Amino acid sequence: MFDTVIRGGRISTAADTFSCDIGISDGRIAALGTDLGPAREVIDATGRWVLPGGIDSHVHISQPSGEGIVMADDFESATRSAVIGGNTTVLPFCLQESGASLRESVQAYHAKAEGQCYTDISFHLIISDPTAQVLGQELPALVRDGYTSFKVFMTYEGLALNDRQMLEVMAVARETRALVMVHAENYDIIRFLTDRFEADGKTAPKFHAPSRPVIAEREATHRAISLAELSDVPLMVVHVSNREAMEEIRRARQRGLKIFGETCPQYLVLTEGDLDGLDMEGAKYVCSPPPRDLASQQACWEGLQQGVFSVFSSDHCPFRYDDPQGKLVPKGRSSFRWVPNGIPGVGARLPILFSEGVMKGRIDINRFVALTATNHARTYGLYPRKGTVAVGADADLAIWDPERRQTLTHDMLQDGSDYTPYEGLEITGWPMTTLVRGRVMVRDGALEGTKGSGIYLPRDISAYA
Amino acid sequence: MFDTVIRGGRISTAADTFSCDIGISDGRIAALGTDLGPAREVIDATGRWVLPGGIDSHVHISQPSGEGIVMADDFESATRSAVIGGNTTVLPFCLQESGASLRESVQAYHAKAEGQCYTDISFHLIISDPTAQVLGQELPALVRDGYTSFKVFMTYEGLALNDRQMLEVMAVARETRALVMVHAENYDIIRFLTDRFEADGKTAPKFHAPSRPVIAEREATHRAISLAELSDVPLMVVHVSNREAMEEIRRARQRGLKIFGETCPQYLVLTEGDLDGLDMEGAKYVCSPPPRDLASQQACWEGLQQGVFSVFSSDHCPFRYDDPQGKLVPKGRSSFRWVPNGIPGVGARLPILFSEGVMKGRIDINRFVALTATNHARTYGLYPRKGTVAVGADADLAIWDPERRQTLTHDMLQDGSDYTPYEGLEITGWPMTTLVRGRVMVRDGALEGTKGSGIYLPRDISAYA
Amino acid sequence: MFDTVIRGGRISTAADTFSCDIGISDGRIAALGTDLGPAREVIDATGRWVLPGGIDSHVHISQPSGEGIVMADDFESATRSAVIGGNTTVLPFCLQESGASLRESVQAYHAKAEGQCYTDISFHLIISDPTAQVLGQELPALVRDGYTSFKVFMTYEGLALNDRQMLEVMAVARETRALVMVHAENYDIIRFLTDRFEADGKTAPKFHAPSRPVIAEREATHRAISLAELSDVPLMVVHVSNREAMEEIRRARQRGLKIFGETCPQYLVLTEGDLDGLDMEGAKYVCSPPPRDLASQQACWEGLQQGVFSVFSSDHCPFRYDDPQGKLVPKGRSSFRWVPNGIPGVGARLPILFSEGVMKGRIDINRFVALTATNHARTYGLYPRKGTVAVGADADLAIWDPERRQTLTHDMLQDGSDYTPYEGLEITGWPMTTLVRGRVMVRDGALEGTKGSGIYLPRDISAYA
Amino acid sequence: MFDTVIRGGRISTAADTFSCDIGISDGRIAALGTDLGPAREVIDATGRWVLPGGIDSHVHISQPSGEGIVMADDFESATRSAVIGGNTTVLPFCLQESGASLRESVQAYHAKAEGQCYTDISFHLIISDPTAQVLGQELPALVRDGYTSFKVFMTYEGLALNDRQMLEVMAVARETRALVMVHAENYDIIRFLTDRFEADGKTAPKFHAPSRPVIAEREATHRAISLAELSDVPLMVVHVSNREAMEEIRRARQRGLKIFGETCPQYLVLTEGDLDGLDMEGAKYVCSPPPRDLASQQACWEGLQQGVFSVFSSDHCPFRYDDPQGKLVPKGRSSFRWVPNGIPGVGARLPILFSEGVMKGRIDINRFVALTATNHARTYGLYPRKGTVAVGADADLAIWDPERRQTLTHDMLQDGSDYTPYEGLEITGWPMTTLVRGRVMVRDGALEGTKGSGIYLPRDISAYA
Repeated sequence: MFDTVIRGGRISTAADTFSCDIGISDGRIAALGTDLGPAREVIDATGRWVLPGGIDSHVHISQPSGEGIVMADDFESATRSAVIGGNTTVLPFCLQESGASLRESVQAYHAKAEGQCYTDISFHLIISDPTAQVLGQELPALVRDGYTSFKVFMTYEGLALNDRQMLEVMAVARETRALVMVHAENYDIIRFLTDRFEADGKTAPKFHAPSRPVIAEREATHRAISLAELSDVPLMVVHVSNREAMEEIRRARQRGLKIFGETCPQYLVLTEGDLDGLDMEGAKYVCSPPPRDLASQQACWEGLQQGVFSVFSSDHCPFRYDDPQGKLVPKGRSSFRWVPNGIPGVGARLPILFSEGVMKGRIDINRFVALTATNHARTYGLYPRKGTVAVGADADLAIWDPERRQTLTHDMLQDGSDYTPYEGLEITGWPMTTLVRGRVMVRDGALEGTKGSGIYLPRDISAYA
Repeated sequence: MFDTVIRGGRISTAADTFSCDIGISDGRIAALGTDLGPAREVIDATGRWVLPGGIDSHVHISQPSGEGIVMADDFESATRSAVIGGNTTVLPFCLQESGASLRESVQAYHAKAEGQCYTDISFHLIISDPTAQVLGQELPALVRDGYTSFKVFMTYEGLALNDRQMLEVMAVARETRALVMVHAENYDIIRFLTDRFEADGKTAPKFHAPSRPVIAEREATHRAISLAELSDVPLMVVHVSNREAMEEIRRARQRGLKIFGETCPQYLVLTEGDLDGLDMEGAKYVCSPPPRDLASQQACWEGLQQGVFSVFSSDHCPFRYDDPQGKLVPKGRSSFRWVPNGIPGVGARLPILFSEGVMKGRIDINRFVALTATNHARTYGLYPRKGTVAVGADADLAIWDPERRQTLTHDMLQDGSDYTPYEGLEITGWPMTTLVRGRVMVRDGALEGTKGSGIYLPRDISAYA
Repeated sequence: MFDTVIRGGRISTAADTFSCDIGISDGRIAALGTDLGPAREVIDATGRWVLPGGIDSHVHISQPSGEGIVMADDFESATRSAVIGGNTTVLPFCLQESGASLRESVQAYHAKAEGQCYTDISFHLIISDPTAQVLGQELPALVRDGYTSFKVFMTYEGLALNDRQMLEVMAVARETRALVMVHAENYDIIRFLTDRFEADGKTAPKFHAPSRPVIAEREATHRAISLAELSDVPLMVVHVSNREAMEEIRRARQRGLKIFGETCPQYLVLTEGDLDGLDMEGAKYVCSPPPRDLASQQACWEGLQQGVFSVFSSDHCPFRYDDPQGKLVPKGRSSFRWVPNGIPGVGARLPILFSEGVMKGRIDINRFVALTATNHARTYGLYPRKGTVAVGADADLAIWDPERRQTLTHDMLQDGSDYTPYEGLEITGWPMTTLVRGRVMVRDGALEGTKGSGIYLPRDISAYA
Repeated sequence: MFDTVIRGGRISTAADTFSCDIGISDGRIAALGTDLGPAREVIDATGRWVLPGGIDSHVHISQPSGEGIVMADDFESATRSAVIGGNTTVLPFCLQESGASLRESVQAYHAKAEGQCYTDISFHLIISDPTAQVLGQELPALVRDGYTSFKVFMTYEGLALNDRQMLEVMAVARETRALVMVHAENYDIIRFLTDRFEADGKTAPKFHAPSRPVIAEREATHRAISLAELSDVPLMVVHVSNREAMEEIRRARQRGLKIFGETCPQYLVLTEGDLDGLDMEGAKYVCSPPPRDLASQQACWEGLQQGVFSVFSSDHCPFRYDDPQGKLVPKGRSSFRWVPNGIPGVGARLPILFSEGVMKGRIDINRFVALTATNHARTYGLYPRKGTVAVGADADLAIWDPERRQTLTHDMLQDGSDYTPYEGLEITGWPMTTLVRGRVMVRDGALEGTKGSGIYLPRDISAYA
């Protein structure tokens, strides 16, 4: 007697597509077969595609954002939007604030997440202050405890590490086999240009984009790769926005290095032009790196198709702008410098790639699964428990109606922000029903599960480390 | 009640690895699950790896070889060696002899194969004489009948097509969505150099290699790609031997073209030096393109690792050299020109890649499955029936002992040749038990099935056409 | 006492620019200095640029063109236009007609040229029928006699050599140190496409361009380079029209090969669109390879700037189209196949590159000199007698007014054709006065010298062979 | 009546080679011609090659070197060695010490040079402290005064600029059209590795090389190019040592950027292995970047041949090691960190490139002239006064005996150091007689001129700015 049987769906993994029933017991996939039964609950998936639930390995939740700005999502709202959008696991960050202990930071994020989540979660560590204590004591212990990935920033006040600090962090990564993720933009270029734009009175949100040009991203990408090559560690370059940075990753991979790339929805369907809105409308598209142009979108598609990019994430980082009294983004009107960097996307990521990628013939369904689930699990030490449809794996499943056509609106996404940058996008295909460890969290498009269903996952070492 | 259950193995597909039982009914995989049963027969796979049976999409059987030379394998011996070596399907060629009807050629090969095979088979069509009748009538009808791949040669007397003929064939391929395979070597270069070597008295087998230099292969590879690009058809470049040809394929793929590459065991473990043996010993390593050098081996590994090559085949083409009276290769001693081009490999292919690739850490087991089974099935229209472990697929399975260590010898391979070019290679890992559509053909290393168990498979259009 | 002193000009060589007088004696530059004198004749060059007379190493004169078509220029008219356009030496071809002796062909062209020329001339040999006699006897003797460059065609009925023949010719070039020039287009592609266009009723001149696509040129370029690499000979790829072919040459050069490239005015200022004229107007732009698009023009400029191309020639090949009775191009209206391939340009070449290149800042004056004179002389064995301004060199000089602005019209060019494809181009800079071996042939824009002043020049081995 | 006539030599410029007399008046070349005369002095150059005197644009003289270390050459000894080695102009640096005024630094170097020089000189400005005063006031004024090139360092204590400072300097360069030179090595990598080596007790001079790996140079090269690209300024990357850094320059040039490269003798004839000597012998080869390996030497030759490198300089930076009491390099024995970085080479540069390059057939004589004289003059605003043999140019000439064979020893070079790293190299060709502005400074290999003959040269804007 299975707890649940999903009947008659078309199942895709990163390599295969087949049709059969899925038998679920104790939250795991117990059997794949024809005419499975009996079961306490049968879900009919005839005409539907059953895919591994999405894993979004790049999500910011409840992080402080400087200048008193509050991030628009806590763990409840962010994971609610995630599960609505077909995800079953998200990986937010524990941010070490300068001067603070990483271990304490981790505990603080656990406290924020405890009992709040609709999806399973796990944490990356953002290292902003690599003291001897952090490098020598905290990181090795945290890796042993299942925090097996570090993120470093090459830009942002209070976050940016210099090259020496990156080498120190990478040395620990090499020792502990943690995976390093990097935000690659040249901080000095950005500060230099930002000062110039401000000096010229160019302070509107749209100047955010030219203050962070492609060269700044390409340069930092090449530098981060060089440091990783020297340190002999794998590296994930997150949120790549354009051809030049992508080609640096490709060149490195062709030399045999374990350099990985990630891109995001904003680099497939937005452009720099979206930042040029009336008043503060443009601020709703401010993220870093900024969206570029149509040729860059094409480059990012090629990166997805040709395997230069192995993961597709949201870089969800939500803020609110319905702000008549200027309280939410207090200094944003004075300069783009003070507009918080980030846009929401955890709910929209999968439908966008499904619709623009699979349904428009740019990628096949197996590549979709790899980019949205399997490769995340492999990269970040969750495989084989997560990221695929196989006997023994967690029954994290999204049942898609591939033909459902909708116009994307913010209210469909149920996150804590007050807009979606993808408002109005025509979408074909939607994750109607989503199960997390066998429990139906979303049924026929409606939230059914309760918060707290999601659990925290300590992680193994990356498959690539 | 299953016909068979394979219990407790570790299963790998092109993307996933998981452990469970496999339930087989009516020759197909009916279920994957834990504690499956009951079954008429249970095969214990504890500690073993259960992989999709190998598909070898490049095998020559019972072809005429000129000068009265008899190929050493008929369908019985070739498929026997194949199944011993972990294969469950092979794709030999129907050779159109000049002036002959393709349809009649096809019938002749069917007659040779009928009732003889241990594995399933299907046929590629070698087009040596693309008359209007062949192009306009026979090929479209044959594609409709399931002969969905054409092979063309750019070299060899009686086989080589000129560029115009290749364009004509590709135009038919575009129309019918057949996949074109190409043997890419520049015939004029080879004839020019062969004449030169002979004029200089350099007639030993070792001069075969420099008579077919890397430039000849690179040139023809670029030319074939150009013709395919112009014709807007996908192309499989078979048996790539070196970095220069591989880089042409990579460049084409990066431009977004559907150009695919294949390499073979001889380019991973042999070198040109192997042709330099006493008397006719070197002839046992004569194949085209010839094995190159150690740097070329490294290039071919990179091609396998980085996805430039999507399939790994044997190019099995066996002859016999135990020939004290000079009857088998009557003119071979007079010049390398008359040594038949080809070496056996259908039995050794999988163990070599498993041992040199997987066990030495060059590729992972999923890539092994993709290169030896899944991608063959996808490329040549046998997927999803063949090439993976999934519910609904044929129960074509090879159960490997990953730790078995042996020294490879010819008698292990049971083919019709009288040697293996890989004699003496230390091998770790062996396909102990092999099932074709659920029937055990090899058990614990010993042949158990009978000839005629293998069937002919008409094929669908390639997944890439 | 000098015969002539050119006073006060600004002189440029391929490397230097300086201002001084030039003293000429016995047809040679006897001195460079300040306040040179006395002289029988003083030419004031104040405010003018004194450059080496142009060498046009790619000029067709009085060749048969098939179908009874007469080339529009004989040696008198072609060299008259050449000298009007600032040239002092041109290198036409001796065409071996199939079945004919090369030696006799050479004699025939000498007979046509004798006493007719305004510039000095020398001959390349077009090898259309590389018989054993030609390869073994005639070519070695002709090279010894100063015919030190061979041209081979990969396309055109009656001219195209196959790869084997090219290897045979290159073997002779290696032995004799002759330089090989190649017209690189894939003949089979062109025939295949031409047949297709004709079958579809697409016979207007504009279909000439798509019948010879970039791929056909890139393919043949790579093939010719491969044959030269194998043969270990330098190679000049003439009339390169686009980026893809250019990049093949660049790649070869970066590998250290002596592969050289040439481009022509038509690839800098014309496009495929020019072939789309009313009635037979488009025929006036039919040449091979055809002009491409604006991006290709940019690529050709990059090739000139970055040294991928070392020579800039006209590929002058003139026909007449003022043809109310359809006698000049009898079958041209029936299909582009029968429109003779070639356009005039020997007179316009230098002003176009000067105006579009030097005056628009794309190349400097030294690069202009290198591309139009010095590199031709070095490549084809005329250096140091020709191609520069240096003591001891022939006093072949063009005195340019860099500021003269004119609209180019056919009547300015004085060739035998009845149009120029560059009609209407705005030109800044003109070669006002031209001296051949110290004799003023053009003075202040007007022809002054007489035909027969030009002499034949046997040549040395190429500096690059 | 000329002051001097050089009779009968074979003259080469960057483009041409010709034979004639050179007439010199008032320090300038007044005439080139045959049988020039009369003259107060006639120098017979029969059988000799007369080349432009070498310009060495990368020479360190009398700079402070930290830790009380004294540079081994003052202006007298450095320019004496330079002229002995065939140079007529050298460009040392004015080093701004941190906190100091650049203008005052310049005055200090003028004071050191005044009356001491055997060759002409001019100064680059090393910017170590780009204060607002320096950027806004001093640099623009200094450029106007003829100090038209800036050098910035990406490594070294007290010298290294961060990216922001480099952008500030480049902004001034863009405004003033000064040329920026960069020493490109990643400082953080070097400090990180140096600490590691010291921590491991690896302090011998030979650890200097692995503490500054190729990756550190490639990374900084790409970063400097990126900053220059963003700033829209030309850039000279000095002392490139290996293929990876060279390929970054090549890629940039192919994109159309004005990025230039320099290499030096140490990268052609030394290797990392030279640093592995007994005791402090290895210190005599410590320079940055360090010499690499044989493949890197080959890469540097390709860079010289193919135009990736436009100048060949010495990076002369001499120290003394005959130091029994440990006074010269007081802390050098404790760690390679304290060994001064730099080796002598101003005297040996030209003979090494002549012998290894021209005489061994790697480059031709015109390329030699371009790499050692003409391109330096063009790049640094001394052309056409310096750098070529042309009427009107300074009579800066080196008369070479191309056949003289010698074993290089330190005493031939007459510099202030106590060794040459090239001791024992077999050299073919030597600059026997050298004239600076018409005055014989070296005659038949012996110093004849007196110190103070050399003058200071304010410079024009670079030809590439």
